[in-house]
Amino acid sequence: MNVLWVFAHPEGRSLGGALRDRGAATLAGLGHRVRHSDLYAMGWNPVVGPGDFGHDPLDRLIVGAASERAYAAGDLAPDIRAEQDKIAWADALVVQFPLWWFGMPAILKGWFDRVFVQGFAFGVTDGGGRTLRYGAGGLSGRRALVVTTAGARPTGLGPRGVHGDAEDVLFPLLHGTLFYTGMDVLPPLVVGGADRAAPADADAAATALDERLRALPTAAPIPYRTELGGDYDDDLVLRPGLAPGRTGLTVHRADPAHRAGAA
Amino acid sequence: MNVLWVFAHPEGRSLGGALRDRGAATLAGLGHRVRHSDLYAMGWNPVVGPGDFGHDPLDRLIVGAASERAYAAGDLAPDIRAEQDKIAWADALVVQFPLWWFGMPAILKGWFDRVFVQGFAFGVTDGGGRTLRYGAGGLSGRRALVVTTAGARPTGLGPRGVHGDAEDVLFPLLHGTLFYTGMDVLPPLVVGGADRAAPADADAAATALDERLRALPTAAPIPYRTELGGDYDDDLVLRPGLAPGRTGLTVHRADPAHRAGAA
Repeated sequence: MNVLWVFAHPEGRSLGGALRDRGAATLAGLGHRVRHSDLYAMGWNPVVGPGDFGHDPLDRLIVGAASERAYAAGDLAPDIRAEQDKIAWADALVVQFPLWWFGMPAILKGWFDRVFVQGFAFGVTDGGGRTLRYGAGGLSGRRALVVTTAGARPTGLGPRGVHGDAEDVLFPLLHGTLFYTGMDVLPPLVVGGADRAAPADADAAATALDERLRALPTAAPIPYRTELGGDYDDDLVLRPGLAPGRTGLTVHRADPAHRAGAA
Repeated sequence: MNVLWVFAHPEGRSLGGALRDRGAATLAGLGHRVRHSDLYAMGWNPVVGPGDFGHDPLDRLIVGAASERAYAAGDLAPDIRAEQDKIAWADALVVQFPLWWFGMPAILKGWFDRVFVQGFAFGVTDGGGRTLRYGAGGLSGRRALVVTTAGARPTGLGPRGVHGDAEDVLFPLLHGTLFYTGMDVLPPLVVGGADRAAPADADAAATALDERLRALPTAAPIPYRTELGGDYDDDLVLRPGLAPGRTGLTVHRADPAHRAGAA
């Protein structure tokens, strides 16, 4: 596979940096081709602005429309186009970051903000004019693996842990971004206790990462419900007969009882 | 009250910009004092780096430790200290942004990343050495109101909507950041269909915002469970007798059956 490894950490000498280096070596050893977007090393600009789109700042900026027009016209800023070329080349994305405030560092959020533009990643229609998303979209056919290192203890990020279950906390990325644009989203690797990682913990994390990378071509994606599959009504609400009476983010999985202890 | 209005939108001539202007006027009319952090207008740098902490980039950067040391020594970068001074002055924060990929624009995520440092916003201990968070912390005593404008239809952001319930999608901000640092977090105002807002919709949004602002001093916060209140065990897991058998982010509310249709 062609793998684009997107990495956001200000310090290469971190646990995250070590995992990135180890992971890239593992992939190469398995015969995959790897390209990198090391956002800090690249000095990536994460702030969406009119310059991204060749937009006259004196005119009102409507980001979706301006980005779609610029994408179609080839007018997007060169740094954005370069990332889109890498994504187009890739069969799989690894998105790796330290969990900051239960989300991505700003530099990485801004990679999605500026690169995943309308017409490229979303807002793509099928032959019948239907907008493709949630299981279809501009990036369909690609696999995505999120790898995050968290200071939080693993139990705190479990199904009833105080921080919220990791897959719920990561829902905006896993479901709202990667699945939204059509990718097959693998269960994330969440490495807890990262601030206090002893060498044995770092080894365990590296081993876990290797296992995920070996399985990258074949692992079962999170079975999110597709939008076009008929599970949602015209108001985009899950039909009453599915996960009846239940709420919570896991209802958007086709196997909502999967979580330990789920009612 | 002293209100700090944190606003992140690249275009002041947007629905969000109009709401911000209207909201500031409403607060002033009610006798509150308002200060602004208009992040795009300020050219806010959202990328955490060694320069934030007076840290020698040749040394390994451990962000938590470096930021705590710099905060204690008064060595934080001036732009960060200026924001902390505004927060210290404020009795309430309004955090307003367009929902991009079901989260904050990168420029705003980076305001939290760089400003909410260890020792200031979190990692604060009580007299007995216990770390204060989730209902206590460096920012306790302040109220927080999130206002977000979303292109998505409101039904899609409801309890069984395809995008996930808005309060679940916003959990990393509402619970993981604002409540984590000790603030009283008011229910967010989510303005859906923002891309297609007709004048009547904009008026309705402004009216809804006015109501929230009038109630700012008195509205009931989201009743998240405090960490020190005894609901979580030593592994940070919700005790079995509370919300028994249930999972999902609403278990972290003291009223987990609040959501329509909750099992």
